[in-house]
Amino acid sequence: MEGLLTRWRALWSRATCRRHHCAPGRGKRLVLSCMFQPQNLREDQLLSLEGRSGELTCKSQRLMLQVGLIHPANPGCYHLLPYTVRAMEKLVRAIDQEMQAIGGQKVNMPSLSSAELWRATSRWDLMGKELLRLRDRHGKEYCLGPTHEEAITALVASQKTLSYKQLPLLLYQVTRKFRDEPRPRFGLLRGREFYMKDMYTFDCSPEAARQTYSLVCGAYCSLFSRLGLPFVQVQADVGSIGGTMSHEFQLPVDIGEDLLAVCPSCSFAANKETLDSAQANCPVCQGLLTETRGVEVGHTFYLGTKYSSIFNAQFANIHGKPSLAEMGCYGLGVTRILAAAIEVLSTEDCIRWPGLLAPYQVCLIPPKRGSKEEVATELMGNLYDHIAEAVPQLHGEVLLDDRAHLTIGNRLKDANKLGYPFVIIAGKRALEDPSHFEVWCQNTSEVVFLTKEGVVELLSRVQVV
Amino acid sequence: MEGLLTRWRALWSRATCRRHHCAPGRGKRLVLSCMFQPQNLREDQLLSLEGRSGELTCKSQRLMLQVGLIHPANPGCYHLLPYTVRAMEKLVRAIDQEMQAIGGQKVNMPSLSSAELWRATSRWDLMGKELLRLRDRHGKEYCLGPTHEEAITALVASQKTLSYKQLPLLLYQVTRKFRDEPRPRFGLLRGREFYMKDMYTFDCSPEAARQTYSLVCGAYCSLFSRLGLPFVQVQADVGSIGGTMSHEFQLPVDIGEDLLAVCPSCSFAANKETLDSAQANCPVCQGLLTETRGVEVGHTFYLGTKYSSIFNAQFANIHGKPSLAEMGCYGLGVTRILAAAIEVLSTEDCIRWPGLLAPYQVCLIPPKRGSKEEVATELMGNLYDHIAEAVPQLHGEVLLDDRAHLTIGNRLKDANKLGYPFVIIAGKRALEDPSHFEVWCQNTSEVVFLTKEGVVELLSRVQVV
Repeated sequence: MEGLLTRWRALWSRATCRRHHCAPGRGKRLVLSCMFQPQNLREDQLLSLEGRSGELTCKSQRLMLQVGLIHPANPGCYHLLPYTVRAMEKLVRAIDQEMQAIGGQKVNMPSLSSAELWRATSRWDLMGKELLRLRDRHGKEYCLGPTHEEAITALVASQKTLSYKQLPLLLYQVTRKFRDEPRPRFGLLRGREFYMKDMYTFDCSPEAARQTYSLVCGAYCSLFSRLGLPFVQVQADVGSIGGTMSHEFQLPVDIGEDLLAVCPSCSFAANKETLDSAQANCPVCQGLLTETRGVEVGHTFYLGTKYSSIFNAQFANIHGKPSLAEMGCYGLGVTRILAAAIEVLSTEDCIRWPGLLAPYQVCLIPPKRGSKEEVATELMGNLYDHIAEAVPQLHGEVLLDDRAHLTIGNRLKDANKLGYPFVIIAGKRALEDPSHFEVWCQNTSEVVFLTKEGVVELLSRVQVV
Repeated sequence: MEGLLTRWRALWSRATCRRHHCAPGRGKRLVLSCMFQPQNLREDQLLSLEGRSGELTCKSQRLMLQVGLIHPANPGCYHLLPYTVRAMEKLVRAIDQEMQAIGGQKVNMPSLSSAELWRATSRWDLMGKELLRLRDRHGKEYCLGPTHEEAITALVASQKTLSYKQLPLLLYQVTRKFRDEPRPRFGLLRGREFYMKDMYTFDCSPEAARQTYSLVCGAYCSLFSRLGLPFVQVQADVGSIGGTMSHEFQLPVDIGEDLLAVCPSCSFAANKETLDSAQANCPVCQGLLTETRGVEVGHTFYLGTKYSSIFNAQFANIHGKPSLAEMGCYGLGVTRILAAAIEVLSTEDCIRWPGLLAPYQVCLIPPKRGSKEEVATELMGNLYDHIAEAVPQLHGEVLLDDRAHLTIGNRLKDANKLGYPFVIIAGKRALEDPSHFEVWCQNTSEVVFLTKEGVVELLSRVQVV
C-alpha cells in the first residue's frame, strides 16, 4: 500500500488542475451584483409569492419572500437562499457555544428512524398523521424523525459500561426535522421540514437531572439574551413527549399561536393551556394576570425514566449496580428563531435582524456612476480594503453594493429593507478633506458622519459569532 | 407593539435564569473522562459491532466502530458520534472556503422533493428503487432527494429577471442525502443516508460553462491537496445524471469499487468503464496503462442544457433575448471523504486523520495517580492553560486525558488509536529543570522532547480550519 500511496501522491501533483489559484477568502471584494439575491436580481420588482395556495401569511414570511431570503418549494418547505444560510450558520454557532459551555457534546443522528423504535414507545400510533412514513426497498418501515428521544435513548442504552462518573451526559444535534403539519403556515414559523437543535440529557438521580434542567434553561436564557430578543420562560404542557415538568421559551408575536398568562408583579408566566380557564390571578403573588400571544422558540422537558425504562438506558451507580438514567430533552427551533426574530424586530417594510445574526454586518454604497460624487468611488474601495485589514473579525461580513447604475437613494432603500446593521454611504461629504462617510446604524436608527478612522473604530466594536 | 416589546424586555430580565454562568468556551479544560467517547467509556473492551447482519466491512468501518466514531442505527445509517461531528464540521469549513473562493454561494434545499419535479425529467421512473419515496397526509408523492438537479433548476428558472451579467452563478449546499442502496456497506463509504456537498452552476455559453467546470475541478484539487490526500481526477461516465463530460475524483483504496486505468507516463486517467475493455494503452501517449482501485469522493458533470431546457431556466443574454443556461453539477461525498481518508491513512490498528480534520489536535497525558511522576500532574495542567493562552487558534483543540487511574502506556495506546496529531506526555523528564515533555507527532511518527516553550513553538505552526 505504501508504494501505491507514493505513486498516487506523484500522480496528483501532475493532475490537470487548471485552477486560477486564489487563496480561500483573501483579497477579493464581495460585491452585491453577483449575489444570488432575488431582490437584487429583480431590483424594484415586487413579488407576490406569499399567499400561494391560500396559505396564511405574516410579516416575516412576506418580507423574507420579497427580499429573497426564502423561496417556496413544497407546502411547508422552503429553499433557504444565501443570506438566510449565513444567518442560520451564525445562529448555529451561537447555539453551539452555549451548548458546549454547559458541557454539551454534538452528535448527528439519521433522519430515517425505524418503526420498531417508535412502536416501542407507542408513538408510532400516537403521532398519527404528523409522522411522515415510508418503506424502503425491502418493505421495512421508517419515519422521518420529528424528534429523537427514541433514537438517542437506544444509542445510550447500547453503551454498556456507562458509569455514574461520566454523568451528566448532554448530547445534542442540529439537524433537519420533519413534521407533516396539517396546515403549514407563516413561512419558516410552521413548516413541514425545519432545522431544530435537540438536546438529550442523562443523569444519575432526579436531583441531578433537575440541576441539569436548570443548566440548560439557563443556556437558553443566555442565548436569547445574546441575540437581544425579548423572551419569557413559561410553564408548559408536556404533550406527546411526556415527562413531569416542562417549560416553553416564547417570543412576543401578535400572530403567535400560544396564549400566555404573564404576571406583571412577579416572575410567574404560563402557557394558558396549563391553567384553569377561569384563573385570572397569579398563583404565586395573587396579582392580576396579563394575557399575551407568543411563538414558541424553545421547549424543555424533564422526562424522568419514561424513555430510559423502555430502552433500558442504564449506568453503573456508585455501588456498581445498574440504574436507569434520568432524562431531559430540550429543543430550539433554529429556522423558527430566525423567522420569529424577524417577526419581532422588523417594521412592516424593512427587515431587522438580531445584530449577531445579520447575514452581512456592513454594506458600502459608493456613488452613482456619472454623479458629481463619482470620484469618491475609489475612496469607497479603499475603505473596503481598509476595513478588511483593520477589522479582521469582519472578514466576509462587508459587502460592496457595486450596482453603480442605481442612485444612492435606491440602493439605500434596498439596504434598509435587507437590514444590514451598518450601511455606509459615500455622499457629498466624502469629497471633504478628510473624507466623511455617512453611516446608518440601522439597529439604533442613528445616522452619523465619520472619517475612515471613525468607521474603523465603530466597526471594531461589532460583535460577530 | 413597541409597548409590548418594552414590557417583554423588562420581563425577561426578571426571568428565572438560574444558570451558573460560564462564558462560552472560556476557562474550562476539556477532559476526556467526560466525553461520550465509547472507547473511553468501555476502556479496554473491544467491540464486535462490525459485520452485523452480514454487511461487508473494511478497515475504516472497523476502526470507526471500535473507537466510537460511529454507531449503527439502521442498515446503511449511522449515528455520528462527537469526534466524527467535529471532523465533519472541519471538513465542511474547508469545503466552504474552497467553494466560496471561486464565488460559490451556499443555499439549503428541502429533502422532500416532489414527484412532479422528478417526473419532469423522467428520473422518477429511471431512478427506480434507489429513490426513497413517500406520500404526505394528503396523498401527494415525494422522494427524499439523493441529488438536486431538478430542484435547483426549477429554483433558478423561477428567477425571472436573471441577466447574463450575473452569470456564472455557482450555488451549492451541504446537506443530508438519501439513496436506498441495494447493499449498503463499508460504513460511511456506502450508506443510505449521507452528507454531500452538491454544487450547481449556471453559465451563459458552453465556453463559459467549461471554464466554470475547470474552476470547480481546480477547487476540488485544492481541497484534496490541503487535506494531504492522494487523489486522481479520472474521466468518467455520466450515468443517470446525464450531460456530455464527467470526471471523478478518486482516492486509492484497495476495497474501492471503481477500477481505474492510470497512465504512469502522462496525466491520463480514466474509470475503466469509460474505456473499451480491450484497451491496454494510453490514448494520449500510447504508454501501457496501469490498473488500480479507487473510491469515488467527488464527481463533476458538464450538463449543458439537459435540465435548463426542461425547466426553462433562462437568462437575458447580451441582446436582451431569453437564453437557456448552460449547467454543470458537482458533488463531494462529505461523510465518504472522512471514511475514505481514514481508510487510506490509517494502519490496521490505529486511525490517522488528515491533519486539518483531526477532531482534536492535541491530547495531553498527565502521569498516573500514585506514580513517582505524579508531581508533574500540575505541570500538565499548567501546560494546558499555557497552550490555551499562547496558541489561541488551538482553542477547543486540546484535550486532557484525565483518566489518571490508567497508566501512561494505556492512555498512549488509546491516543495512538484515535490518532490525535500531537500526543504530549508528562513522563520522567517532566521532573527535570526545565521540564521536558515527550511529544508524539503521530502523522510523522516522530517523538521529541520539548520544553514548554518548545511545545508552544511546535503547536503554533499547526494549521486548523
